Amino acid sequence: MTKASKNSGEFDLIERLFAPYADPDTALNLRDDAACYTPQAGYDLVISTDMLVSGVHFPLAASPEMVAGRLVGSNISDLAAKGAVPVGCLLNLALGADWDEAFLTAFAAGFGARLQDYNMPLWGGDTVQSQRGQNAMVSLSVYGVVPQGTMVRRDGAQIGDDVYVTGNIGDGFLGLQHALNQSQGESLATFAQPDPPLAFGQGLRGLATSCLDVSDGLAADLDHLCAAAHVAMRLEASAVPLSKEGQAYIAQRPAQLMDLLAGGDDYQLAFTAPASAAAPLSRLAGETAVRLTRLGCVESAAADQYRAVFIDQMGENLVLERRGFQHF
Amino acid sequence: MTKASKNSGEFDLIERLFAPYADPDTALNLRDDAACYTPQAGYDLVISTDMLVSGVHFPLAASPEMVAGRLVGSNISDLAAKGAVPVGCLLNLALGADWDEAFLTAFAAGFGARLQDYNMPLWGGDTVQSQRGQNAMVSLSVYGVVPQGTMVRRDGAQIGDDVYVTGNIGDGFLGLQHALNQSQGESLATFAQPDPPLAFGQGLRGLATSCLDVSDGLAADLDHLCAAAHVAMRLEASAVPLSKEGQAYIAQRPAQLMDLLAGGDDYQLAFTAPASAAAPLSRLAGETAVRLTRLGCVESAAADQYRAVFIDQMGENLVLERRGFQHF
Repeated sequence: MTKASKNSGEFDLIERLFAPYADPDTALNLRDDAACYTPQAGYDLVISTDMLVSGVHFPLAASPEMVAGRLVGSNISDLAAKGAVPVGCLLNLALGADWDEAFLTAFAAGFGARLQDYNMPLWGGDTVQSQRGQNAMVSLSVYGVVPQGTMVRRDGAQIGDDVYVTGNIGDGFLGLQHALNQSQGESLATFAQPDPPLAFGQGLRGLATSCLDVSDGLAADLDHLCAAAHVAMRLEASAVPLSKEGQAYIAQRPAQLMDLLAGGDDYQLAFTAPASAAAPLSRLAGETAVRLTRLGCVESAAADQYRAVFIDQMGENLVLERRGFQHF
Repeated sequence: MTKASKNSGEFDLIERLFAPYADPDTALNLRDDAACYTPQAGYDLVISTDMLVSGVHFPLAASPEMVAGRLVGSNISDLAAKGAVPVGCLLNLALGADWDEAFLTAFAAGFGARLQDYNMPLWGGDTVQSQRGQNAMVSLSVYGVVPQGTMVRRDGAQIGDDVYVTGNIGDGFLGLQHALNQSQGESLATFAQPDPPLAFGQGLRGLATSCLDVSDGLAADLDHLCAAAHVAMRLEASAVPLSKEGQAYIAQRPAQLMDLLAGGDDYQLAFTAPASAAAPLSRLAGETAVRLTRLGCVESAAADQYRAVFIDQMGENLVLERRGFQHF
């Protein structure tokens, strides 16, 4: 950590625990006040940051591996949506009162394993101790590169484009229920260790006209794409890709599809692309082993109608009382 | 904010409040998931981050202007120490329960004014709501540039170098006492709105062999320079530059110098440079209106003696029970 060199042994412990994941050149072995990085000529640096609060973005009783997995996954998701190749990250920790040596050791191991999954070294950060009774808070800033001018933006959707989503929608919501109820299910792993389609996202450069990661909830996030590009979307509700668990969840109560559309935390990619991209996208999905689903298309709209409309099997507009994530 | 587009009006408010300080090109008007930046060819990017917790790094009752001033000042201080020119920043906010619209509006105005002081646009960030009863937490990541290979590092001190410090030492400590006791004094402004010697720091490129900012406490921070370079320092305690308030503080009780040496929060620069740099440093100090003081010199040391030794006027080693910042 750039500022881990405080007085207490705890900060020495943290420096020791995280040193194996540091890039010695950029991070100066985590022993300077700053990291120093030179992007290759012809590349843009893509920068994003997400913070997670204990009791808000992960359960108070979350395991250290879950905290690490959600922190890295939610941040990598932003780089995936922008088509970027990860090059480094900064970690800020406000330690909770219950973050003892065992917790920190397991957190560092889980964090480091996820960094290695994405070939993303640690550049530095800052560590502070929360006050007594205060919750832990963790934030990551992630850095990636793209060839100059090729970052996939949020605001590029064109009328007539197709609308796609990767993976399954709703497993973030279902996994959160497992985490809160301490029940089991395949979606729990999706919630605890989100693994965004990074290679697929990088392949979207030059194919997608706009993209974001599904973090707030598919409905709310598609609304964001619409608002940014001043368009609307017409989508088939029945096309929304669900896991077996998701299918079972709505089998008895079809209206519960709303929970999955508004649940958030999926860390999949939602994007738009012209019809000419359909064949290359299909190949890319095959090469990167990603489930790819076309949901519908981009339409023109009046200024107060920039939103995603889901159509049910009766041809009726699906009314969603909620469209995005509610913090628990 | 890259993720301010949540559900509630509060996040819309935040986006509106901070938009005037955003760089539209890099930050994509704060409406994308990421910022996109291309350093000029031949430049390195210097990256640092500091987080502040309410009740730890600023008093629970701190004004919004004090929170903003300390956040920007403590981060700019790291860029100053590295000789970097600020180019942008990311702001992460975990809102406290008492951060109502009036507080947020004043915070944004104070934050924006400080960004404009340093010509540093906002690139994005993330905003979350702390849980009920939880303290506010703010963190900034700052980005600067230096001509390739010229970043002033922490580990370059050479035996025989002179040791310097800018400004006054101890006003951070004295200002903190004012903030806690709600008393008045010139040092309160130094604590509330630290203004690190940025232009002076940029002038240190090619002159200083090592540098850091005085944030933990002058004694502890000089120890860091020693440890990084495997050297010791021999310094005159009577040379430590004090404000009139600092001089008054030790006038009756000379032993209280320890409070000023270990107090931290000064956000001045401590650095080493060869004798050949003395004249250019003196010119640089004059041009940038910085008080510059030579404290002593760098010496060789055994491996267990890498630390800064202050000598009193009797020629005795000053024994410091504390060498760095204690969180309040």
